[in-house]
Amino acid sequence: MSSHADRLKALREQLKEDRLDGFVVPLTDEHMSEYVGSYAQRLEWLTGFKGSAGSAVVLPEEAAIFTDGRYTLQVRQQVSPTEWSYESVPQTSAAEWLRAHAPKGARIGYDPWLHTADWVKQAREQLAAKGAELVAVGTNPIDKVWADRPAPSDARLVVQRDELAGRSSADKRQEMADWLSDNNADAAVLAALDSIAWTFNVRGADVTHTPVALAYALVNRDGTADLFVAGDKVDAQVAQHLGNGVRLHERDAFEVYLKSMAGKTVAVDPERSVAAISQALEAAGAKVWRVRDPAVLPKAIKNPVEIAGHKSAQARDGAAIARFVRWIETEAPKGGLDELKASDRLQAFRAEGGLLKDLSFDTISGSGPNGAIVHYKASEETNRPLEMNSLYLVDSGGQYEDGTTDITRTLVIGEPTEEMRDRFTRVLQGHIAIATALFPKGTRGSQLDSFARRPLWEAGLDYAHGTGHGVGAFLAVHEGPQRISPVGSGQSGGDEPLAAGMILSNEPGYYKAGEYGIRIENLVLTVEKQVEGAEKEMLGFDTLTFAPIERRLVVKDMLSPKELAWLDAYHAQVLEIVGPQLAGEDRAWLEAQCAPL
Amino acid sequence: MSSHADRLKALREQLKEDRLDGFVVPLTDEHMSEYVGSYAQRLEWLTGFKGSAGSAVVLPEEAAIFTDGRYTLQVRQQVSPTEWSYESVPQTSAAEWLRAHAPKGARIGYDPWLHTADWVKQAREQLAAKGAELVAVGTNPIDKVWADRPAPSDARLVVQRDELAGRSSADKRQEMADWLSDNNADAAVLAALDSIAWTFNVRGADVTHTPVALAYALVNRDGTADLFVAGDKVDAQVAQHLGNGVRLHERDAFEVYLKSMAGKTVAVDPERSVAAISQALEAAGAKVWRVRDPAVLPKAIKNPVEIAGHKSAQARDGAAIARFVRWIETEAPKGGLDELKASDRLQAFRAEGGLLKDLSFDTISGSGPNGAIVHYKASEETNRPLEMNSLYLVDSGGQYEDGTTDITRTLVIGEPTEEMRDRFTRVLQGHIAIATALFPKGTRGSQLDSFARRPLWEAGLDYAHGTGHGVGAFLAVHEGPQRISPVGSGQSGGDEPLAAGMILSNEPGYYKAGEYGIRIENLVLTVEKQVEGAEKEMLGFDTLTFAPIERRLVVKDMLSPKELAWLDAYHAQVLEIVGPQLAGEDRAWLEAQCAPL
Repeated sequence: MSSHADRLKALREQLKEDRLDGFVVPLTDEHMSEYVGSYAQRLEWLTGFKGSAGSAVVLPEEAAIFTDGRYTLQVRQQVSPTEWSYESVPQTSAAEWLRAHAPKGARIGYDPWLHTADWVKQAREQLAAKGAELVAVGTNPIDKVWADRPAPSDARLVVQRDELAGRSSADKRQEMADWLSDNNADAAVLAALDSIAWTFNVRGADVTHTPVALAYALVNRDGTADLFVAGDKVDAQVAQHLGNGVRLHERDAFEVYLKSMAGKTVAVDPERSVAAISQALEAAGAKVWRVRDPAVLPKAIKNPVEIAGHKSAQARDGAAIARFVRWIETEAPKGGLDELKASDRLQAFRAEGGLLKDLSFDTISGSGPNGAIVHYKASEETNRPLEMNSLYLVDSGGQYEDGTTDITRTLVIGEPTEEMRDRFTRVLQGHIAIATALFPKGTRGSQLDSFARRPLWEAGLDYAHGTGHGVGAFLAVHEGPQRISPVGSGQSGGDEPLAAGMILSNEPGYYKAGEYGIRIENLVLTVEKQVEGAEKEMLGFDTLTFAPIERRLVVKDMLSPKELAWLDAYHAQVLEIVGPQLAGEDRAWLEAQCAPL
Repeated sequence: MSSHADRLKALREQLKEDRLDGFVVPLTDEHMSEYVGSYAQRLEWLTGFKGSAGSAVVLPEEAAIFTDGRYTLQVRQQVSPTEWSYESVPQTSAAEWLRAHAPKGARIGYDPWLHTADWVKQAREQLAAKGAELVAVGTNPIDKVWADRPAPSDARLVVQRDELAGRSSADKRQEMADWLSDNNADAAVLAALDSIAWTFNVRGADVTHTPVALAYALVNRDGTADLFVAGDKVDAQVAQHLGNGVRLHERDAFEVYLKSMAGKTVAVDPERSVAAISQALEAAGAKVWRVRDPAVLPKAIKNPVEIAGHKSAQARDGAAIARFVRWIETEAPKGGLDELKASDRLQAFRAEGGLLKDLSFDTISGSGPNGAIVHYKASEETNRPLEMNSLYLVDSGGQYEDGTTDITRTLVIGEPTEEMRDRFTRVLQGHIAIATALFPKGTRGSQLDSFARRPLWEAGLDYAHGTGHGVGAFLAVHEGPQRISPVGSGQSGGDEPLAAGMILSNEPGYYKAGEYGIRIENLVLTVEKQVEGAEKEMLGFDTLTFAPIERRLVVKDMLSPKELAWLDAYHAQVLEIVGPQLAGEDRAWLEAQCAPL
């Protein structure tokens, strides 16, 4: 295996051959995905960086890697300072760095299949100020020098049956066709992988922990569609499911097909599509209508069948969590447990019923100080034992064909300190403030975020992440467009109005670096709420996740009567939903956990 | 006086002569001011509309007026449906309407001294889609046909002494010069009238209720400045105060002067400057650096002298309010009081000490159902008596040379209903939630807004305005950049981080159309707060406004112990600060109002 220094050298030679004075390396795929397949891990291949977000710029004599605050330490451990300089986003963007460092008149390459059109426009403006040029490459120069680059996954598509999806694909496509017709447009590009999976009621296995397949689609004004996906992924059953209304093409044929759209008006989502798509359409003489992908909102607003499925998945998942928590409580004090053993056992509990398709993300299993690392992933090198008188944070989820789950519990092994109990109770108060919020229709997630922080703010504390993200229906565990987060936090979605049917996480936390981490996460469903005398249509949340909240960490006297009533009522619901799935000592344990405080 | 129909006809003839197929009429002045002098009231002259925000578009056969939700009723009363169609913003912008209604190939005029460059860009794009053109006019065609157009005010400048301003103008300009130097720029345009007044430590009287003068300025990298203001406004004292570092020019000479800036880099605030300024600079070969006007942030962050002055003004203002409230309580039940008599008496109480320079805005004096109109202005036609068993809302403020005040109190005449008391108590709870908020440095106003709404949301209620705006130091009563309002509300400023020294209003409300209105408004100062064990630098608010809150409208049992403690402590402070200024029955009355609940 070549060293990262060799790889950088090989890339620079390739750039010279391609007559480029630099190249920009993002971490995404041709669908602007958050998680990408191994074939698209070009940033890691080039630099060694294993984080989930970042980018790099290579110039003939200089190279820089750009990461956000979560990865300040990690990038220094994984990426060599001999070849790379470390830059922090959002303080310094790759485009700004290029403006300062690219030589006058330089030709800087970028892969138009890995950036949005807006990024290209901004970077081009930055470079123009320097008299330098941004040049689209035909073939990514990294791919030319990455000898053992993995092939994209060849996993097959599977049908998501109507009794799970709640709506037929034809019905979804007809709604999009009506929308195109109302807006005098001819077709809509679907480039986001979960939009395609949702629209066609299919699932795949090309991206870790997210049941989607690499594909593009065009939905047409007449209700038909063109689906671009590797032919060997489509078996007879899937082909029959897709039906006559869906024309199948190879994924590679997508760009050429776009060139046939001359004179057409085509909807393209500027956030969810790469620049190459609009460029191909515009070059062909089509008109690009910049508008949100029409699958995004109906996918976020779950239908009654999806909601019922989600609740089944949650009941099942809650029983696995309950068994796991009891197991930790019993085993950890004996010694010998560690983060990896614990997460393996949790996966086994989830798999017991035979219905688990996958985890919905890599389990965050953080003991003591590791719990304070928000995006922690245990490895052999970092694995810590579960020690007495410490906290253990476990954030995990399951992909079931009827729903995607995501839950965090913070457990105490032995005795907690008073500070731990104070902090846990504040996090719980924030969690309850979201769970019980009532708000008028049209309210955006950003308007709720501070409710979760106020109990921490009162003690001069906070947490450096959002409060809630959307969750898919047997799809991505991070699903847009809605989010509960402050505006200006760098994460989009806080300004999206919440609507009945949207599922969100509710996950405030507190992290004491080097000591412990606390997070309490349930999923919630946005629902209409009847309020006597209300002058507005009101919304609120129904909690969907059922598992006990560590009562030994709650300072009862800090809770208001309303907060205490919520906690007792929640535990009563946990017992009602999870209890019947447990027997014997598990059941007795759950009853004790769920008794009124 | 010509009819509005005649004026529209005259404008259309003028447009024909000017070879224009349409014209856009905004409501602003050459400084993007919120309030404008009578010479700039072109929209009212043309249409009869007296609201504070709106715009119009005139085409040869059609004309439309655009107003927001506050003015839906008013525009129909004041503007003739024979000539005008009513359009609602933000649903339909003038530019969008033009796109739909302007004939293909039309030449639509606009006055580049009354729109931002961003507006021009967007409108131009909308029209281009229609093959129509946006054309800058040399002279506003309305001015050509408005025979009796008032001349701009000839009020003189006065010096704002350093002992009130807290910093010399030279010091402020030097800071801007250093900033220009650090950023390799040559000069900064100041176009916002309050930025100019603040920078040069002068005040004027050209705009109703805002002590500013019509002027432009350029602050240069060498610390000198060019001030463009009518020569007859500047007397010897002001000239001496401005000193050698400030070159004086006629205001009319500004555009010509900009043409001398070839090769210079000039900072221009895209929100606070009209398009004509950037256009003149660009035409001259200067480089426009789009950046916030450098006076905005230091003006918002009050210095210790300004804060001390503000507190003196508040103490004085609180005594006037206390006398007024007692007068209302005594006189209203006898009958014979009405909204206009009440607001006149309030102004007289404020003027008593001889220090009142002006009101800070037209007093909102709303009895019963008129209190539910958020931007109500009593007139002979709408004037209502203060009736028994009704609420009376009064929102008012004073301009003193040491500070600008803004306070709302809601009083009950006779007996309130249980509903009124419930609603008032919820508004008070929201007010207290803002007054007591603690939050980390960097928090934006939008993150606090919902704290004020939650008690109302819990009953299915809300209010359709922001929670807080910035306030100037003997300057504009609405001062940016900060604001406490939800993002997406159409008002800018909610995303501005709050900083110690910023003054804001705290004014939640509740309005029952046709019945009554409730608002409780105090000004607050953003301050650093010490919190034991805090991990973050924390901010919070100190309340600056001192006047009793109507105790007969408070349902004590609805308040938490913390809320009750806040109210009692607040009233104790009111007594401490206002009490010494009152005597006899006034003093005894205040003591009763301020007793613990």
